[in-house]
Amino acid sequence: MKVITFGEIMLRLSPDGNKRLVQSESLNVTFGGAEANVAVALANWGENSAFLTKLPEHEMGQSAVNSLRKYGVDTSYIVRGGNRIGSYYCEKGASQRPSKVIYDRAGSAFALAKAEEFDFKTIFADKPWLHVTGITPALGADAFDLTLKALTEARNAGCVVSFDVNYRSKLWSKSQAGEVIKKLLPYVNVFIANENQVSEILGIKSPYTPPENDEYQPQTNAYMAEKLIKEYKFDAVALTARRTISSEVNTLRAMLATADQTSFSREYTINIVDRVGSGDAFAAGIIYSLLHGKKPDCAVEFSTAAAVLAHSVEGDYALVSEDEINSLVNFGSAKVQR
Amino acid sequence: MKVITFGEIMLRLSPDGNKRLVQSESLNVTFGGAEANVAVALANWGENSAFLTKLPEHEMGQSAVNSLRKYGVDTSYIVRGGNRIGSYYCEKGASQRPSKVIYDRAGSAFALAKAEEFDFKTIFADKPWLHVTGITPALGADAFDLTLKALTEARNAGCVVSFDVNYRSKLWSKSQAGEVIKKLLPYVNVFIANENQVSEILGIKSPYTPPENDEYQPQTNAYMAEKLIKEYKFDAVALTARRTISSEVNTLRAMLATADQTSFSREYTINIVDRVGSGDAFAAGIIYSLLHGKKPDCAVEFSTAAAVLAHSVEGDYALVSEDEINSLVNFGSAKVQR
Amino acid sequence: MKVITFGEIMLRLSPDGNKRLVQSESLNVTFGGAEANVAVALANWGENSAFLTKLPEHEMGQSAVNSLRKYGVDTSYIVRGGNRIGSYYCEKGASQRPSKVIYDRAGSAFALAKAEEFDFKTIFADKPWLHVTGITPALGADAFDLTLKALTEARNAGCVVSFDVNYRSKLWSKSQAGEVIKKLLPYVNVFIANENQVSEILGIKSPYTPPENDEYQPQTNAYMAEKLIKEYKFDAVALTARRTISSEVNTLRAMLATADQTSFSREYTINIVDRVGSGDAFAAGIIYSLLHGKKPDCAVEFSTAAAVLAHSVEGDYALVSEDEINSLVNFGSAKVQR
Amino acid sequence: MKVITFGEIMLRLSPDGNKRLVQSESLNVTFGGAEANVAVALANWGENSAFLTKLPEHEMGQSAVNSLRKYGVDTSYIVRGGNRIGSYYCEKGASQRPSKVIYDRAGSAFALAKAEEFDFKTIFADKPWLHVTGITPALGADAFDLTLKALTEARNAGCVVSFDVNYRSKLWSKSQAGEVIKKLLPYVNVFIANENQVSEILGIKSPYTPPENDEYQPQTNAYMAEKLIKEYKFDAVALTARRTISSEVNTLRAMLATADQTSFSREYTINIVDRVGSGDAFAAGIIYSLLHGKKPDCAVEFSTAAAVLAHSVEGDYALVSEDEINSLVNFGSAKVQR
Amino acid sequence: MKVITFGEIMLRLSPDGNKRLVQSESLNVTFGGAEANVAVALANWGENSAFLTKLPEHEMGQSAVNSLRKYGVDTSYIVRGGNRIGSYYCEKGASQRPSKVIYDRAGSAFALAKAEEFDFKTIFADKPWLHVTGITPALGADAFDLTLKALTEARNAGCVVSFDVNYRSKLWSKSQAGEVIKKLLPYVNVFIANENQVSEILGIKSPYTPPENDEYQPQTNAYMAEKLIKEYKFDAVALTARRTISSEVNTLRAMLATADQTSFSREYTINIVDRVGSGDAFAAGIIYSLLHGKKPDCAVEFSTAAAVLAHSVEGDYALVSEDEINSLVNFGSAKVQR
Amino acid sequence: MKVITFGEIMLRLSPDGNKRLVQSESLNVTFGGAEANVAVALANWGENSAFLTKLPEHEMGQSAVNSLRKYGVDTSYIVRGGNRIGSYYCEKGASQRPSKVIYDRAGSAFALAKAEEFDFKTIFADKPWLHVTGITPALGADAFDLTLKALTEARNAGCVVSFDVNYRSKLWSKSQAGEVIKKLLPYVNVFIANENQVSEILGIKSPYTPPENDEYQPQTNAYMAEKLIKEYKFDAVALTARRTISSEVNTLRAMLATADQTSFSREYTINIVDRVGSGDAFAAGIIYSLLHGKKPDCAVEFSTAAAVLAHSVEGDYALVSEDEINSLVNFGSAKVQR
Repeated sequence: MKVITFGEIMLRLSPDGNKRLVQSESLNVTFGGAEANVAVALANWGENSAFLTKLPEHEMGQSAVNSLRKYGVDTSYIVRGGNRIGSYYCEKGASQRPSKVIYDRAGSAFALAKAEEFDFKTIFADKPWLHVTGITPALGADAFDLTLKALTEARNAGCVVSFDVNYRSKLWSKSQAGEVIKKLLPYVNVFIANENQVSEILGIKSPYTPPENDEYQPQTNAYMAEKLIKEYKFDAVALTARRTISSEVNTLRAMLATADQTSFSREYTINIVDRVGSGDAFAAGIIYSLLHGKKPDCAVEFSTAAAVLAHSVEGDYALVSEDEINSLVNFGSAKVQR
Repeated sequence: MKVITFGEIMLRLSPDGNKRLVQSESLNVTFGGAEANVAVALANWGENSAFLTKLPEHEMGQSAVNSLRKYGVDTSYIVRGGNRIGSYYCEKGASQRPSKVIYDRAGSAFALAKAEEFDFKTIFADKPWLHVTGITPALGADAFDLTLKALTEARNAGCVVSFDVNYRSKLWSKSQAGEVIKKLLPYVNVFIANENQVSEILGIKSPYTPPENDEYQPQTNAYMAEKLIKEYKFDAVALTARRTISSEVNTLRAMLATADQTSFSREYTINIVDRVGSGDAFAAGIIYSLLHGKKPDCAVEFSTAAAVLAHSVEGDYALVSEDEINSLVNFGSAKVQR
Repeated sequence: MKVITFGEIMLRLSPDGNKRLVQSESLNVTFGGAEANVAVALANWGENSAFLTKLPEHEMGQSAVNSLRKYGVDTSYIVRGGNRIGSYYCEKGASQRPSKVIYDRAGSAFALAKAEEFDFKTIFADKPWLHVTGITPALGADAFDLTLKALTEARNAGCVVSFDVNYRSKLWSKSQAGEVIKKLLPYVNVFIANENQVSEILGIKSPYTPPENDEYQPQTNAYMAEKLIKEYKFDAVALTARRTISSEVNTLRAMLATADQTSFSREYTINIVDRVGSGDAFAAGIIYSLLHGKKPDCAVEFSTAAAVLAHSVEGDYALVSEDEINSLVNFGSAKVQR
Repeated sequence: MKVITFGEIMLRLSPDGNKRLVQSESLNVTFGGAEANVAVALANWGENSAFLTKLPEHEMGQSAVNSLRKYGVDTSYIVRGGNRIGSYYCEKGASQRPSKVIYDRAGSAFALAKAEEFDFKTIFADKPWLHVTGITPALGADAFDLTLKALTEARNAGCVVSFDVNYRSKLWSKSQAGEVIKKLLPYVNVFIANENQVSEILGIKSPYTPPENDEYQPQTNAYMAEKLIKEYKFDAVALTARRTISSEVNTLRAMLATADQTSFSREYTINIVDRVGSGDAFAAGIIYSLLHGKKPDCAVEFSTAAAVLAHSVEGDYALVSEDEINSLVNFGSAKVQR
Repeated sequence: MKVITFGEIMLRLSPDGNKRLVQSESLNVTFGGAEANVAVALANWGENSAFLTKLPEHEMGQSAVNSLRKYGVDTSYIVRGGNRIGSYYCEKGASQRPSKVIYDRAGSAFALAKAEEFDFKTIFADKPWLHVTGITPALGADAFDLTLKALTEARNAGCVVSFDVNYRSKLWSKSQAGEVIKKLLPYVNVFIANENQVSEILGIKSPYTPPENDEYQPQTNAYMAEKLIKEYKFDAVALTARRTISSEVNTLRAMLATADQTSFSREYTINIVDRVGSGDAFAAGIIYSLLHGKKPDCAVEFSTAAAVLAHSVEGDYALVSEDEINSLVNFGSAKVQR
Repeated sequence: MKVITFGEIMLRLSPDGNKRLVQSESLNVTFGGAEANVAVALANWGENSAFLTKLPEHEMGQSAVNSLRKYGVDTSYIVRGGNRIGSYYCEKGASQRPSKVIYDRAGSAFALAKAEEFDFKTIFADKPWLHVTGITPALGADAFDLTLKALTEARNAGCVVSFDVNYRSKLWSKSQAGEVIKKLLPYVNVFIANENQVSEILGIKSPYTPPENDEYQPQTNAYMAEKLIKEYKFDAVALTARRTISSEVNTLRAMLATADQTSFSREYTINIVDRVGSGDAFAAGIIYSLLHGKKPDCAVEFSTAAAVLAHSVEGDYALVSEDEINSLVNFGSAKVQR
C-alpha cells in the first residue's frame, strides 16, 4: 500500500554544531517538514511513499524535490509553482540553552496554494494511506481548507488517515489549534499526539494527580486514549511522552492504544544529536507497524525505537534503517561494529 | 558631513566557490544590498555613514545589523520590527555560465514598511547626504511612497541626494522602472547609471552609430550626460560601462560629467572574484570624491578603481581601503607585498 | 523513449579547490562514471533515463544510488551485491600542472559482475535507447563479455545503441582497446569519439597534412566520419576536438556527421571549473538531440554547448539545464542574471 | 551609565571541535580577553559599554576592533599602534583531557603600551564604571603601571571600579599575583574572585574544615567575603565556585556579599560547549545587576545564570540575551522553542 | 630498543561529527591500523619506532607514509608497490546508535604482499621488539604466511614479540580466528586481549559465575591470565575490560599479569570523542611500560590511562603525550590549563 | 650529499581562497619559510635534506617540526626552546589587488637564538651543502651574527654554500640589506637573486637601456652575472625574472651563469594558485641540478619549471615531483591524466 504524506517541506538553515545564528558565517542546508520527514522514513524502510506539496520551480524548490528523491520518496505528485519555499532557521541548543526555531514560511508556495491545485481524486484513486499533521492547517485559512479537503476526499476514497497533532506555538495559539483540529479529527483513523496536547489542545484532562518530577503516568495516557477513541472513533491512538533534562538529554517513551489493547514502550534516555524530526520518526513507525500488521506491543516498541534513533541523526530526516531499529528493540548494543 | 543610505539589506546565501545551488549542502551567509553596500564602503574609508532600513528583531535581523556595525556603519536609525528579512540566493557563474540571483524579498520587513515609521525630519535635520537606488522604489507600492517621501523630505531639509538607477529585471520591467524613476529624478542632485539604463529606461537615445564589438563610445556617454543635466538639472552625472567577456572576465570604465566638464576613466580588464556590489563601490566612490572635493578626472578614476577592486572581494561589501584604491589609481603593481 | 546507460558508477574523492592529494585532510564525495553521467544529464533535461550497473548494498553503494535518484535517474534496474564500489581520486590541476585521476576500481562489484546477473531481456523489452562507453569493456574479461552481451541483446531487441570510445590509458593500451572495441562496433548505431581515438585506436588515418599549432582540421574529421560510416554502417558519427591550453583553459568544437550531412559547431574557449564529465555531456547532447529530431547543425551546437557548460560545474554530473544550453547556443550573455 | 572595560583583547585561534592543535589544518578565528568579554556581554544586554586597549593598525588589529563593533561595543577610545596583537591558541579538552591555552601575547601592542598613551582624564570625565581584571597587570611592568594609573585616575574621577582576580598561572606565580593585586585593591569597589584565589593569592584562609569531595561550603565563602570587605572596604564581593567533573561537565554556583547581606545562587551542572569566558559573563552579570539595582539574591542568580549560559556558546563572548538569562533564572525549560 | 610494528595501514574516511555516511558530501582523511597506531603512540612518547608494511607508490600510499613520518615513525622499511591502499569508512555512532566500520581492504597492496618481499633478516638484525595483532593474519592466506614468517624470524633473531588479539568479526569468524591465532601464540612473549576474546576465541572459560550488569570480575581475568601463561609461556598477559553504556560513554579498566604478579587498574568512565585506536594505545602503553621497566601496577595504570586519553582524540592515532598520561595516572584535573 | 638549509620556519595563517583577512572566521594553517621550503622541495625529490632552526617545544613548534617530517625533511638538528614561533598572515590577492603578507615574527625563538646554541662543528662535519637566504640575517642583530657564523663555519668545514638574496621590504631597507649581504657574499659559492636585487641592493647597474614594457633583457642579466662572478668569485649565479601581469598571472624566466657559460630558460606565463614559495622552488632546483651534475641549460630549465609548478600548489612547499618537473621541461601537456 502506498503512503502519501501531505504538507509543507521547508529549507532548513542551521549553524554548524552549537554555533548561534548570530555567529554563523555559513548555514547548513537540509530540507524537512513533519509530513516530508514521515515520507522519507517510510521510503527508507522500503515502503512506497509519496510526498504531496507545492514547490516553486526555481533551484531552491528543485533542491527540496531532490532531497526527497535522493532518499527514495515519490515526488511525482508535487505541484510546481509559486515564488518561495518556506524556510526555517534552526539553532541547536546546549545544556541549559534551548534549541530555537525561527520560521520564515509565510507566503510560501504551499501556504498560498489553493485546494483546486491538487487533483485529490486521482491521487487517492488507489486508496493510499494518507498522513497529515496539525502543522498543515496552521499555515493559514487556505491551508485549513486544503487540509479539510484532503481529509474528506481521502476518506471518501476509502483511505486510512493518520494525523499527528504536532502543535507549534509559533504558528498559532492552543485555542486556535483546538478549534481547527477538532474539525479535522472526524476524518482521522490513527491519532498521534502527546499528553500535553491532548490535555491543553483537545481539553481532555486526566483525573489522576500528576506525579512529581514530571514522571510518566501510564494511567493518564490510557485514560486519554480511551476518551479519544470513544469520542472520535479512532482505530488507534499513539501518545509519546518526553522529558527534557537538558538540550542534550531527553527521555522518551510511548503508548499505543486501540479499543482492545494498550501497550507501553520501555523508556529511553537519549543523548541528542538533532532534536528535530524524532516525533515524525515515531509517526512513521506507527504507520509502518500498522501497515505490516505488527502487534501493538511490537508496534509501540518499534516506533519508539525509531524516534530514539532519529535523535542520533543530523537533520529532519530519520536516516536509520529497519535493521538498526530492530536491533535497538532487541536490546542490541552500542558497541562499535567492525 | 554624514551620509545616509536608505534601502533594503538582505541576507545573501551563496554556495562555496563555483558550486551550483542544487549541489550545495551549505550556504555562505553575508549581507548586502545596493544602499547598504554604499554605506559600508564609505565607513570603510573613514566617512561617517549610516544606513536606514527596517529589520526584524530576531537573530537574522540582528545579524544584518551586526554586519553593518562590524564595518563601522551607524545603525542607530534602523527601525526594528516585522517578520522577515529579505534574502537572496546568489550562484556564481563560470566561463560561459552566467551568475544568477534568486530574490526572496517579497513580504520583507522593509518591503512592507510604511513611510510613517521613519522619522525623516529628525534624520535629515543635520543635512546629511542621502543616497538611494532604483531598487528601493521597485519593491512595491509602499516602497515607492517611502522613497518619494524620503527624497522630498531630504531635499526640503537641504540634503544633497544621489541616485543610482540600478535596474533589476527580476523586480520590474523597464517601462515600469522608467515611469517610476522619472518621478524621483526631480529630487536628485547626483545621478548614477549606465548607458543602457539611460537609453532603455529613461529613453535618451544616442544619435551616434553604435560601434562594433560592444566597444566604448565616449561621445554617446557625453551626449547622454548633457541631455540628463539639461532635463533634470543634475549637478553631476556618472555613467559606467561594462563589457562581459565571460563570467570571470569583464572590462570596466566610466565617465563623470558636470555642466562644465566631462572626464573619462581608463579602462580595466578585471578577473572577477565576486560580481555583486561593484556598482555600489563606484557610487560610493563618486559620493566620497564629491564630498572631498576631488576634481572630476580624479573622482572618476577613484570611483572606477574602487569598483574594479570591489570585484576582488567576496560578498557585496567593497572591503578595500582608500590606500588600495589610490595605489591602483597611481598605477600600483599587483606584486605580492612582503 | 527511455534511455538506459550501462556501466560503472564510482565514488569520486577530490580535494578542495586546487589542493594536491598529499595535502588533503578531507576529500569531497561525489559520484560519477561516463555512463552514469549521461543518464544524469538526460534526466536533468527531462528525459526518462535509467542507469544499469551493480553496486554493493552497504552505505557507499547506497550513496551512489542516492546520488542518481537525487537528479531523477531511474535506479530500479541496478543489481545490488558485491563488496566494493569502484572509486577514483581526482586531483584538479592548475596552470601547467595537469589534472590527475587515480583509479581504484579493480575488484569492484561491477567489475566482477557476471552477464547472467542482468536480465537484459526484460530490461530491453520496451526498446529503450542503450548507451555504453569504451570504459565498460576495459574493466576486465567479465566486463567485456557483459558489454558484448548487452550490445547484442539490445540490438536483438531492436534498441538504438550509442557508443562513446572514451579511451582511458590507465585502463588499457590503445592496441588492446582497438581490438576489443572493433568487436563491439558492429552493434552500434551512433558512434562518438575524437580525432585521436579514431586515428590511434581504430587506425583510420587522415590523408591530410596536420595543421600547425594543433589547429582544427574539418576535412580530417569529415574524412574519418565518412570512413567510419562506410565501415560500420553507423547512423551518425560525432567527433569532438579539444585543445589543452592549460589546466584551466581548453578549446572545444565538434562535428556531427551522417551519411547525408556533416555539421560543425562553433569553437569555444573555456575556463574550466571541472574537467571531468564534459565528454559525457556531449554524448548526452547527441542522444537528446537525436531523440528530439534536432537537425544535425542544431544537434552539434546543442551537444557542444552542453559539453562547454559541463566544464563550469563541479563534479562529474552536467548539472546545466536545457534552457541554459539553448541560451548559450543562441549567443546568450554571461551577464549576471538579476 | 557607561561601562568601560580596560585590558587586552587577543586573537584566539582554536581547532574545530575536539581536534588537537597538532592535528589542525585550520584554526577558527575569534577574539577575546577577560575585559573585552565583559564589554561584549554588557553591550549585548543593551548597556552602553566601551572597551579600552591598544591595537595595531593592520588587518588583524582591525579585525579585533570589528569583532567588538559587531556586537555593539564602543571602540572609539581604542589607541591604534604597535606591531602585534596578542594571540592565544585554545585547544578544547575532552573527558579526562583538560582544555589547554597557549599564550602568545608577549610584545603585543598592549603589553608594550605606556600609561601616557591613554587619555584617562577625558575617558573618565563622565564617571563611567571601570572594570579591570588581574590579567592586565600580569602582562608586565608597563602593564602594572598602566593598571595602577587607570585605577587611581578612575577613582579620582569618581568612577566605580570593579576588579576580577582572574589568576592565570601561565602569566605569573601566585605570590607575584598576590603582591601586585594587593596594591590595586584599595582602588576597587566591587571585588570578584573564587575561593581558591582568595585563599592562595590574597592569603585569606577559611577557619572551617574543608568538606569532602570538593563540595561547596557556604560558610567559608561568607567568611572570606566578610574578611575582604573589612580589609579593603569593598562595596560588594562576588565569589564563584566551580567543580570540574570532566572537560565537558562542570558545576557552578556563586555568592554575592555586601556588608549587609550574603546571597547564594542555586547550583548548576553544566554540559560545556566552550569553557572560556564564563567567568567574564559572571562579572558582567554582577556589573549589570548592580547598575540596575537588582537585589543581591536576584543579582547572584542573574550573574550565575549568565555564566552558566556562556558555557553553551562557542568563543569567549557570552552571546546570550537578557531574556535567555532571565528564563533560566525563572526555571525555564530547555525544550526546543518552535 | 627499537620497536617494529607490522601490519596494514589504511586510509580512513570518516564523516564530520555525527553525520551518517549517506549524508556526507565530504569525508575526513586520516590513516590508521592497529599496528600503525601502536607505532605512532610510541614515537609520540619518544621511542624509536618503525612501521613495516607494503604500500602503493601513488599519492594515497605516499599520504599514508607521510602521516606516519609526521608523527615521527620510521618508515624506511616500508615496501612500496601494488595498486591499492586498504581503506575503511568509519561512521561515528551516537547515543543508542553504534559506530560502524565498513572495510574496503580486500586486494590491497599489503593483503596481496608475499613473505619474500620483506627482508626480515635485516629488519630483525638488531633485535627490535616486534608487535603484531590478530588483524594481520586475518587478511588472507598470504597474510597468515606473512605473519607466521615474521613471528618465527623475529623469535629466531631474539626479538621480544607482543601480540594483540584484536578480533574483527567483519574479517573472520571466531572459530577461524581461534584456529589461526593458536598457531601464532607459541612465538609470542607479551599477550594482549580482552576477556571475551580469551573465552570465545581461545576457549578459556572462567569457572566463576558471571556478575550481573556486565560488572568487572577480577578473579575471572586473573584466572584467564594464569591459564594463558601456563599454556603459552607468556612473559606477560594484559587484558582490558570495556562496558559500552552508549556510543558516547564507555567504562574501561585493565589487568596486567605475569607469572609473579597480577595488577588491576582503576576504572574510568569515558566520554568518547573517537572510539577507534584506544586498544592500540593500551598496547603501546604496555610495550612502553615494559621497555622502561615500569612495575606492573604502574604499567597497567599507565597503559589504561593512555587508552582512556586516546578516546579524547579524533582519528586512530593516540596523540597524547607521556606527560598527559602521567598527569591522569596521578589524578590530575581536567581543569582548563591557562 | 646532504643539504642543510638554515633559517626560520613560520606558522602561515591564510584565509580560504580569495577572502580578505578582515572577513575570515578561520585561517588555514601551513608552515613555511624560504629555507624550509628549499629543504622540503629537495626531500620531495629524494634528496637527503635537513632543516636547521630553533623552535619552541609547545604544540605550535611541534606542528612546524611535524610539517617538515611529513615531507621527509630531517629535523634532528633543530634546537628546541624559546616561547614563540614566528608567524605570518598571508592574504591572497586577486586581479588588480596584490597579495599581502603581514609578518608577526619579532621575538620568535629563532630571532632570539644565539650562535652558540647551534653546534655547527658537528652539523657541518660531513661537508653538507649549506643553503641560506637574505631573510635570515634580516631578522636582527643576533640573526646576522648567527648567519655569519653559519657561513664561515660552513666554508671552514669545506661546505658548498648557496645564498638567495630574497629581499623583503617589510624586514629591512634596501640599503641595510646591501650593507649586510655584502659581508656575507664572500662565503658564498652559488648566488641566487633577481635583476632588481642585483641592481638596487648590490648596486650593480646595467649599462643597457631598459626595454619598454618591462620586457626581459638577456644582456643585462648576463652583464650582472659576469660582474658578480668577478667580484665575489661565485661558482654560479642564477637570476630569475618575473613580470606581474595581475595577482593571478605572472611570467617567469631565468638565467644560470658560470664563468664559462650563460644559459637562459624559456619564458612561462603562469596562472597562479599560490604565489609564495616559487622562488624557493627555483633555488631548490638550482641546488638539485648542481648536485646531480646537470648541464647549465638543463639546470636552468629544470629550476624554472620547478618554480613554475610551485605556483600551482597551495602553501609555501613546492609539492611537485621530479617527474612532473621533467614532464614540463619536455613540453608535456596539461591534459588530464586518466
